Amino acid sequence: MIEDELISPAEEGHLGYSKIDVDLLNEIQEIIPAGRLLYKREDIERYSHDETEDLRFYPELVVLPESVEEISRLLSFCTQYHIPVTARGAGTGLAGGALPVFGGIVLSLERLDRVLEIDERNLQATVESGIITQKLMDAAAEKGLLYPIDPASKGSCFIGGNIANGSGGPRVVKYGTIRDYVLNLEVVLPSGEVIWTGANTLKNSSGYSLTQLFIGSEGMLGIVTKAVLKLVPKPKHDMLMMASFPSNELACEAVGHVFRNGIVPSALEFMERTGIEWVMRYDDVHFDLKEGAQAFLLIELDGNNTEILMEEAEAIFKVLDAHQAMDVLLADTVAQKEALWNMRRRMGVSVKSNSVYKEEDTVVPRAELPKLISGVKVLGKKYGFGSICYGHAGDGNLHINIIKGAMSDADWATKLKEGIKELFELTVALGGTISGEHGIGLVQRQYMPIKYSHIHLALLKGIKQLFDPKNILNPGKIY
Amino acid sequence: MIEDELISPAEEGHLGYSKIDVDLLNEIQEIIPAGRLLYKREDIERYSHDETEDLRFYPELVVLPESVEEISRLLSFCTQYHIPVTARGAGTGLAGGALPVFGGIVLSLERLDRVLEIDERNLQATVESGIITQKLMDAAAEKGLLYPIDPASKGSCFIGGNIANGSGGPRVVKYGTIRDYVLNLEVVLPSGEVIWTGANTLKNSSGYSLTQLFIGSEGMLGIVTKAVLKLVPKPKHDMLMMASFPSNELACEAVGHVFRNGIVPSALEFMERTGIEWVMRYDDVHFDLKEGAQAFLLIELDGNNTEILMEEAEAIFKVLDAHQAMDVLLADTVAQKEALWNMRRRMGVSVKSNSVYKEEDTVVPRAELPKLISGVKVLGKKYGFGSICYGHAGDGNLHINIIKGAMSDADWATKLKEGIKELFELTVALGGTISGEHGIGLVQRQYMPIKYSHIHLALLKGIKQLFDPKNILNPGKIY
Repeated sequence: MIEDELISPAEEGHLGYSKIDVDLLNEIQEIIPAGRLLYKREDIERYSHDETEDLRFYPELVVLPESVEEISRLLSFCTQYHIPVTARGAGTGLAGGALPVFGGIVLSLERLDRVLEIDERNLQATVESGIITQKLMDAAAEKGLLYPIDPASKGSCFIGGNIANGSGGPRVVKYGTIRDYVLNLEVVLPSGEVIWTGANTLKNSSGYSLTQLFIGSEGMLGIVTKAVLKLVPKPKHDMLMMASFPSNELACEAVGHVFRNGIVPSALEFMERTGIEWVMRYDDVHFDLKEGAQAFLLIELDGNNTEILMEEAEAIFKVLDAHQAMDVLLADTVAQKEALWNMRRRMGVSVKSNSVYKEEDTVVPRAELPKLISGVKVLGKKYGFGSICYGHAGDGNLHINIIKGAMSDADWATKLKEGIKELFELTVALGGTISGEHGIGLVQRQYMPIKYSHIHLALLKGIKQLFDPKNILNPGKIY
Repeated sequence: MIEDELISPAEEGHLGYSKIDVDLLNEIQEIIPAGRLLYKREDIERYSHDETEDLRFYPELVVLPESVEEISRLLSFCTQYHIPVTARGAGTGLAGGALPVFGGIVLSLERLDRVLEIDERNLQATVESGIITQKLMDAAAEKGLLYPIDPASKGSCFIGGNIANGSGGPRVVKYGTIRDYVLNLEVVLPSGEVIWTGANTLKNSSGYSLTQLFIGSEGMLGIVTKAVLKLVPKPKHDMLMMASFPSNELACEAVGHVFRNGIVPSALEFMERTGIEWVMRYDDVHFDLKEGAQAFLLIELDGNNTEILMEEAEAIFKVLDAHQAMDVLLADTVAQKEALWNMRRRMGVSVKSNSVYKEEDTVVPRAELPKLISGVKVLGKKYGFGSICYGHAGDGNLHINIIKGAMSDADWATKLKEGIKELFELTVALGGTISGEHGIGLVQRQYMPIKYSHIHLALLKGIKQLFDPKNILNPGKIY
């Protein structure tokens, strides 16, 4: 009985609700066959949340399209009937961006998961948007090529989600963000019309860039179905070192000075000791942490010549030494490197499993990091929260995991908002912004006015109105 | 007598005309003082053209603001009175983008020409938009830093114009386009409101990117007044070589193969023999060109270690050799390098001075270059035009200088359009687009429908309508 199984959105605490009844459902089945159309509670549960703390919004319907044509027909239909459609990648988001806060349909891109071409002649990849990032990286690596944008969730996240959130990851510091790698996008507009936004070229100065407008638009302007991405030759060697510091501030100050020697590491990550300790506990692994060390930097170099890498490493040693590094360990084997990277990547999930927490994705000009991290601790004292900080220090991008600790439930629910507001005010005052790579989604939208004037926000809303006049695509996000 | 001096737009062949009379002029003088407000024909002549062939549109008025506040007040005024305003950088454009085709005001940014900060801590520059690109590069170089986006006109063009056109230049192949370097923009909107589009950070995922929307928008959405730009450490060494080939196709095929060795040159330029010969004549300089050589590649490597550069050069020699390079010369001295680069940069102006010509800025996926250049010659035979091709072959970006030669004036005026249309159809069929770095401006707008559907163009127009509802900023461009 379809009727009984349909979720009543009002029951699920949606901000609003749509009106998918049996008649509409039958029409949708003309577009997406029954087997790829989910509405039973147990089937849609996994689409009701992402990796953001605490959030749960059940869609009324989940569809698993297998072609651009199906998506085109569905969006045209949903525009006609004002049904909200929220595109979903792998659900690894940290800002609630893929959650259907107004109910309606979740459109999962999981079946559009092919690498269509690795073009060795032009160093380009053409992929469907539901491809797992790591699979694209592997396909490129097989041909000696590198796709360098590797978020911590690269083993599960989708390229489409990376594009929607303007993703970064540890290699941004050398290679840039996903913005620098997307050449062309196939997008289904809310009307059902399909466009390619650009050309498969390394440069393009032919009208306002719709390609760049869709990057970071969090699925609100259109649904990306294919992407053409720039690849680069894969460096033959890399080198990974970890340095210990007696304080967060000393570690962060060292970061800024590494670049002054003309060296650009391929990654420069910061981690607080507690973060590593929590990973050790969560994953039952062990790292020898220098006694008294409070903060750690993970520094990677890559290139085609090991002697040069060693020279660069030595120059970095000197900088670290001048900033009171307590020791610097070089990873000797592939296994050691992988263990250190895993430790870094598992930090988010370890913190999440260990405590009630909230993750903020602040970014500031690199040299302001010491002030930001000191400020976080001061605010923690003021509002009574703990924090574990780590992230892409080379980019000035600090993931601040706010830990509930001894904070009362009431304070956590209400007073914390004030603390986070103050944190973003500090971030903006330091020349930074609210999110470096996670996106705004649902949870950060209330803080957007800290960074942007009403004029700026009105322009964002106007762009939305232009692309999606019926407001069906991922409503309720960003602003 | 102001009244006598005011240009009557109808006389000047404008597409339309505005209505700046003495009353309005007096009001504008309240905003921009008389000394920085030009209306005499001899004063405004140099603002009536850019570097595009044959075009001449006199503005009614030229203003030289010295502050953001003046620009803000002026735009607010012009929106109120529906007066067209065309922002102008150095006037080095090659698509007529800075020409006031509907008359009105040309707003020159020449007085906003300061480097405000070279931030060595964060590797960032903050500049006003009227700064000459070379001056920014010099200011960065003084601190050991590189701003790598150097169009051929770098000695005279402005950063603001580079941003408006999404500029590239020879180093794109390694360093990316200006899109990858602009972090934040101060923009005056047509309403007179002033916004900063982003943050001074290396990554930013906080709402649709207005920064990227303004890049390449050709002054139609707002007027950029300040820019925060990413800098990189300046490589300590570079190496320049020139290779000769018996045919265009062999040279272009070699280009694609250079990258397959894991080497990314910092520049990879293509030049036809005739182009070099015309520079030699125009500048009265001499280069020994191998007899029988038809095409030349200029290849630059940069890095911090000369031994590595030499290894890379040797790998490139092998590729060139495999593609029938007739010889490869290495520039030994700084003077030789500068002479070769000057030769490449002077090609456009030499062609221009030597013949009636039209310049196209086609770009295709790199590996399609041989097909593009063969196609150009086939079209030349069909329509009776000559051509000199050169450009950023490493990016697949070919500047095609169409030479009038023996073509009749009548055919040049009418039949040529068909030929250019066919050329762009070929470009698009090869996966490319109409302009790689010059912009669409006035002269390429008629060809936009070859690349873009009416849906795509309607979105561009909708964006314009949102940002500039009275259509005062640079009307008549792009679409």
